[in-house]
Amino acid sequence: MATSVVVVGEEVMRNKQVIFKDYVSGFLKESDMQVINGTLKLKLPEGSNGIVVKNLYLSCDPYMRNRMTRAEGPNIFTSFTPCSPLTGFGVAKVLDSSHPNFKKGDLIWGTTGWEEYSVITELEGLIKIQHTDVPLSYYTGILGMPGLSAYVGFYEVCSPKKGEYVFISAASGAVGQLVGQFAKLMGCYVVGSAGSKEKVDLLKRKFGFDDAFNYKEETDLDAALKRYFPEGIDIYFENVGGKMLDAVLLNMKDHGRISVCGLISQYNLDQPEGVQNLMCLIYKRIHMKGFVVTDYYNIYPKFLDVMLSYIREGKIMYVEDIAEGLESGPAALVGLYSGRNVGKQVVLIARE
Amino acid sequence: MATSVVVVGEEVMRNKQVIFKDYVSGFLKESDMQVINGTLKLKLPEGSNGIVVKNLYLSCDPYMRNRMTRAEGPNIFTSFTPCSPLTGFGVAKVLDSSHPNFKKGDLIWGTTGWEEYSVITELEGLIKIQHTDVPLSYYTGILGMPGLSAYVGFYEVCSPKKGEYVFISAASGAVGQLVGQFAKLMGCYVVGSAGSKEKVDLLKRKFGFDDAFNYKEETDLDAALKRYFPEGIDIYFENVGGKMLDAVLLNMKDHGRISVCGLISQYNLDQPEGVQNLMCLIYKRIHMKGFVVTDYYNIYPKFLDVMLSYIREGKIMYVEDIAEGLESGPAALVGLYSGRNVGKQVVLIARE
Repeated sequence: MATSVVVVGEEVMRNKQVIFKDYVSGFLKESDMQVINGTLKLKLPEGSNGIVVKNLYLSCDPYMRNRMTRAEGPNIFTSFTPCSPLTGFGVAKVLDSSHPNFKKGDLIWGTTGWEEYSVITELEGLIKIQHTDVPLSYYTGILGMPGLSAYVGFYEVCSPKKGEYVFISAASGAVGQLVGQFAKLMGCYVVGSAGSKEKVDLLKRKFGFDDAFNYKEETDLDAALKRYFPEGIDIYFENVGGKMLDAVLLNMKDHGRISVCGLISQYNLDQPEGVQNLMCLIYKRIHMKGFVVTDYYNIYPKFLDVMLSYIREGKIMYVEDIAEGLESGPAALVGLYSGRNVGKQVVLIARE
Repeated sequence: MATSVVVVGEEVMRNKQVIFKDYVSGFLKESDMQVINGTLKLKLPEGSNGIVVKNLYLSCDPYMRNRMTRAEGPNIFTSFTPCSPLTGFGVAKVLDSSHPNFKKGDLIWGTTGWEEYSVITELEGLIKIQHTDVPLSYYTGILGMPGLSAYVGFYEVCSPKKGEYVFISAASGAVGQLVGQFAKLMGCYVVGSAGSKEKVDLLKRKFGFDDAFNYKEETDLDAALKRYFPEGIDIYFENVGGKMLDAVLLNMKDHGRISVCGLISQYNLDQPEGVQNLMCLIYKRIHMKGFVVTDYYNIYPKFLDVMLSYIREGKIMYVEDIAEGLESGPAALVGLYSGRNVGKQVVLIARE
């Protein structure tokens, strides 16, 4: 670990950082990142229009792998800059502000750096945290980007109806666990897939899924889906892509809907797997739609009201997997792609 | 050619037929079919509830190849029965009827046999032809199933708006030529792909497409699409699938719509090609929807009114490729999959 010296105000301060070393091809490894002691001035220079924050929680999200590839072709993400800290969603406390919307002591969530302290000048999309009767880490998940993804991806994209058959892949993850519970609250029949017995138990016992299976133990995903959905699937909430999508297409009901939230099984492949069963889109009159959560930020206040009520009334359960310390960040992020995390993967940098 | 003897009324009559020999794998060949002289009684037996028809025009439609595979997994089509005549859309004249809705002399379009005369007992979906100031063959195309497919696939599935950028594959075919003209009537910018210079000329000169290209001459479909749509595609009317779909996904605009009508490039493959660029569904918030035209038969009367006006006012052009005689049926059908036809492929069995 390199060590350097930082100026805070006029005082020299350490700023530990997770550095993105270079563009990645193939499966992400811890050695693609490096933890160093960088430097930062905690006082903003005169005339700047940003904030200085102390980072509290960082969010490990599947899309981050996409930012590690050199952007070619259509992409909503800018690539990370080699030799710079990773950035991602996080919860932070404002230490200094030269922007009228934020003041010292505010808690915020939004895009920040993978480091102890960050200077943020891109303030659009930063949201002030008003409710602190729930754990602050929730704003990286159930009350943050993944929560809003689950909410809009299910309610807005899937047009769900009571009694429908819902299948969710990566179902114990940050998004999947919420989608399943939304579907249960709506009176749907819900089955999830996940990658371990522990996760399958969690889905059935904690999150109230009607059933769940370990996809790693199924040699024939088509047969597995036929077992759990003998009458077919009305709604598929897509988090993984690849072979699972091909099997689901064979098992959709007529006029089924597929909400495409993510394709995590593909993010570490240099060439995505081909999906062969698209003829089912015609035979089964399937509506398939991709979405990007940032398009729906305007409904965040409504979403927050609903979710806070659900949490306070105990109607929604939520499971996090919290890694302690910035040093554990690279392993936590890598673990996401092999499914090592159980529930939403968070990295704790500092308690308030 | 085998020869046999038929009874008409009590009279013996020949009934030439195109026989589906056995399930097909790989590319369809003429030898997968056989023209024989079969037999038929033209008088219905007492107590039956069907009609006897003289077939006039038969329609060659891409989906027919799907009925030649032994049905496995989800399919909206029943397979053809080996050693029986092909069936498909056609125009016919009623010779005898024991059903109150049809009488001798009526002209109808709908599902009939690939033969000179057919007994039809499945009358649902048969539509009586009321307007004969247009060629009868039009009821296999512009005024029949392909016409309605173009109409609902464009207006109902794509939600088109004036000024949008529309791309159509297999654009000179029965469906594509109409979609392109609908899009022009709506004020869209329209480009089509087809498989020969002759067809490309037809698209630009006869059908009024803004531009067109021969996909067989393009080594890089992505680059070709970038040339014709530097700002991207709002609406893709999908008739072919495979590599073209992969290239289109890379070139869709945000919130683009893909209407999946057919995947003709895949029908003769034992394993469909894999489509790799589905991540674009997310990045570009794409809405992709398959449809089956029979779900929309309720709007046929409205469609017919609109199309008859368009034809009579010269607002819509229409090109047919008419093969003469039932014997030419197998070659005409096979030719569909290599794009030998120019315009809607019809087989003329008999003039009224």
